[in-house]
Amino acid sequence: MLKNDQLDAWDRDNFFHPSTHLAQHARGESPSRIVTGGSGVYIEDRDGTRLLDAFAGLYCVNVGYGRSEIADAIAEQARELAYYHAYVGHGTEASITLAKMVLDRAPDNMSKVYFGLGGSDANETNVKLVWYYNNILGRPEKKKIISRWRGYHGSGLMTGSLTGLELFHKKFDLPLDTVLHTIAPDYFRREDLSMSEADFVAHCAAELEALIAREGADTIAAFIGEPVLGTGGIVPPPAGYWEAIQPILKKHDILLIADEVVSGFGRLGSMFGSAHYGIEPDFITIAKGLTSAYAPLSGSIVSDKVWKVLEDGTDEFGPIGHGWTYSAHPIGAAAGVANLKLIDQLGLVSNAGKTGAYFKTALKDALGAHPNVGDIRGEGLMCAVEFVADKDSRTYLDPAAKTGPQIAGALLKEGVIGRAMPQGDILGFAPPLCITEGEIDKVVAATVKAVNDVL
Amino acid sequence: MLKNDQLDAWDRDNFFHPSTHLAQHARGESPSRIVTGGSGVYIEDRDGTRLLDAFAGLYCVNVGYGRSEIADAIAEQARELAYYHAYVGHGTEASITLAKMVLDRAPDNMSKVYFGLGGSDANETNVKLVWYYNNILGRPEKKKIISRWRGYHGSGLMTGSLTGLELFHKKFDLPLDTVLHTIAPDYFRREDLSMSEADFVAHCAAELEALIAREGADTIAAFIGEPVLGTGGIVPPPAGYWEAIQPILKKHDILLIADEVVSGFGRLGSMFGSAHYGIEPDFITIAKGLTSAYAPLSGSIVSDKVWKVLEDGTDEFGPIGHGWTYSAHPIGAAAGVANLKLIDQLGLVSNAGKTGAYFKTALKDALGAHPNVGDIRGEGLMCAVEFVADKDSRTYLDPAAKTGPQIAGALLKEGVIGRAMPQGDILGFAPPLCITEGEIDKVVAATVKAVNDVL
Repeated sequence: MLKNDQLDAWDRDNFFHPSTHLAQHARGESPSRIVTGGSGVYIEDRDGTRLLDAFAGLYCVNVGYGRSEIADAIAEQARELAYYHAYVGHGTEASITLAKMVLDRAPDNMSKVYFGLGGSDANETNVKLVWYYNNILGRPEKKKIISRWRGYHGSGLMTGSLTGLELFHKKFDLPLDTVLHTIAPDYFRREDLSMSEADFVAHCAAELEALIAREGADTIAAFIGEPVLGTGGIVPPPAGYWEAIQPILKKHDILLIADEVVSGFGRLGSMFGSAHYGIEPDFITIAKGLTSAYAPLSGSIVSDKVWKVLEDGTDEFGPIGHGWTYSAHPIGAAAGVANLKLIDQLGLVSNAGKTGAYFKTALKDALGAHPNVGDIRGEGLMCAVEFVADKDSRTYLDPAAKTGPQIAGALLKEGVIGRAMPQGDILGFAPPLCITEGEIDKVVAATVKAVNDVL
Repeated sequence: MLKNDQLDAWDRDNFFHPSTHLAQHARGESPSRIVTGGSGVYIEDRDGTRLLDAFAGLYCVNVGYGRSEIADAIAEQARELAYYHAYVGHGTEASITLAKMVLDRAPDNMSKVYFGLGGSDANETNVKLVWYYNNILGRPEKKKIISRWRGYHGSGLMTGSLTGLELFHKKFDLPLDTVLHTIAPDYFRREDLSMSEADFVAHCAAELEALIAREGADTIAAFIGEPVLGTGGIVPPPAGYWEAIQPILKKHDILLIADEVVSGFGRLGSMFGSAHYGIEPDFITIAKGLTSAYAPLSGSIVSDKVWKVLEDGTDEFGPIGHGWTYSAHPIGAAAGVANLKLIDQLGLVSNAGKTGAYFKTALKDALGAHPNVGDIRGEGLMCAVEFVADKDSRTYLDPAAKTGPQIAGALLKEGVIGRAMPQGDILGFAPPLCITEGEIDKVVAATVKAVNDVL
């Protein structure tokens, strides 16, 4: 336990927290938590509270907390060489080895990986490269990006625009006007309840076709999507969705960016969500699971088709004008190498598939009959429970009641961290991939209690 | 020395390096370098080459390489708690302590620090907050950002737009149209050679006033500038520049963002460039020197004036929709705490002032009379030599001759890393702040040899 009693005052006086009610925090009206350690699926705070983190930080601590193998790799790299840049052909053993390990795991048509720091900047890189690609190909008008409502792709200016959630747009003048949004592939929230899943997929495809027709395919450069919607509510796609979407993109020569920041490296029970759903992307965005968050690192994996054009571009115009000082940072790279090895050694990809199925079944058994539970869904170790006012009509609860956050709060009192997703009343789970069935039982029991406390 | 002989092949097959000629690198036509260690101002590569790094990585390894104090802090944090997020009021001892340490060192009117990962994302945060600020104040039209030609503020879509260098715009459709550029405060490159320094400052001020008048002050939100132009050519401002610029911004209610990614934490011989030049910013961007690059971490320091409006915004609209998963990452925060302590303990801020003056004088003594040396300039431990075809007329050398890169290449053969700045023929230096006069003598001697070899 920490001894410094000034920390709370220092925090409220100096620290601008992300995604926080700034005024309440500064005034000391909202709780703070100073986290001091963790092991497996558990974290501990300075007050000695131990919590089962069923959201793995922000679905990122995939190998679980307290892994000495990764800490040792970070320590060794810090002592050997904490930093040198990767510009103009420079590298380190760790960054080069990790590049090779990423490409060994990525789909066959992928060629190279550019390393950034977080998912937002990786998607920023992708958009820059998409624009560059079409400029090199002599198609300067082909630049708009299509995203989906309820997609999450970051919170920068461009990446927050790609994100299809109001919270990230409001008062920030987003989305920027080069970004278009199409319908979210959320079968549960289809407008016409009479639609079959196949009907709804056809509807999603038709909406995309109509948007492309309205804007003109020659103005649209790329389509970005998460294999499974994440922050938008943890929504696996309806059956056949990606099979229906991809031919449309191909027909109109629109590049496909698979945002695998959440799904990459095992969360769905496959190494990549692209493989899981038969997606053949031109870019794959990676972050969280790449290092299990032990150090910041992200990546933009580019396909052979894209790389060829990037090569042509530098042959014509010289070195590419893109780089972060901390691209391929040695500490992040060392963490990534140790993390990917550990994922293999512990069999976490298959564990995610197995325990994920167990988790979803357990949630359905325990809560499926509850009158305010509209949907229980998931894929691998991403699960969600969506609450409704009425089960049959699927009407929304009154947003002012903040039912989702209340249930997450009640769950926390039971010692379990879930996440109230930012739009709708949805309780999300994305635990470390090392979670056991026994730990899942605890999460489910605590969730039942929290739901019954609030509803 | 590393044993893995496949590294070079793995590198060229898998690794997309920043700011690199992608095609030449992939084809094996350009050199690569695998860096394995470093100590003080020196780095070593796998071939056993030892180089004096007079650019401190990318002006970021301010405390020098191989500092066990920072490596130990990183190792300890990695073992205790490598990651937890900072959303919704969460923190760690390291992140809170660092927030306090940053504010203790920042100008008095500064209030809070938001931690990001690199300088680009910190400036992205600044622009988002500037827009939010004017929306909360009910001025939705006041959104454009003024930057300077030859400023460097990142290489994302918005931040690359702020950057005023062609390399970062070409083929990327930048700058975005909300960004305006005004004249670079480069007295040496004034168009009218008859202008005195005071005349030139008045000219810079008049150009800014004219730009604001043309666009309308009610459309302009902020002005961003580095205290000393960095990547644009290492150019200290003419005397009186910031004194002339600031009243214009105040008059038109335009916020000032001081980009101190390079100058923050001692490089100019002052803790901040803002204090050094009497700049009173509303935002300060920090990165590089914050951790000396031992781990990725950046920051946006916001003033009392801005913070007050952000509080009002969250009171009205709820939690702020901005955050990176890796904001305030514990590993970066631990590196930052150890780094700032070390800067104090070693007296590196005053050393930068002292050795910087020695360095500039030594360069002038050694090269001032050379017929192709047009300018030798610097402030603290940022120095540059600008080469010209003719000393009196200050005409540019033929760009096709690539004189700057050639001299940097010749310098490397002498065992010293300088940097050919991307625009013009300028050799830049920004060594670790721990550099000694003896080491500076080596850099100067090698530079003289390199210049005489090429010119």
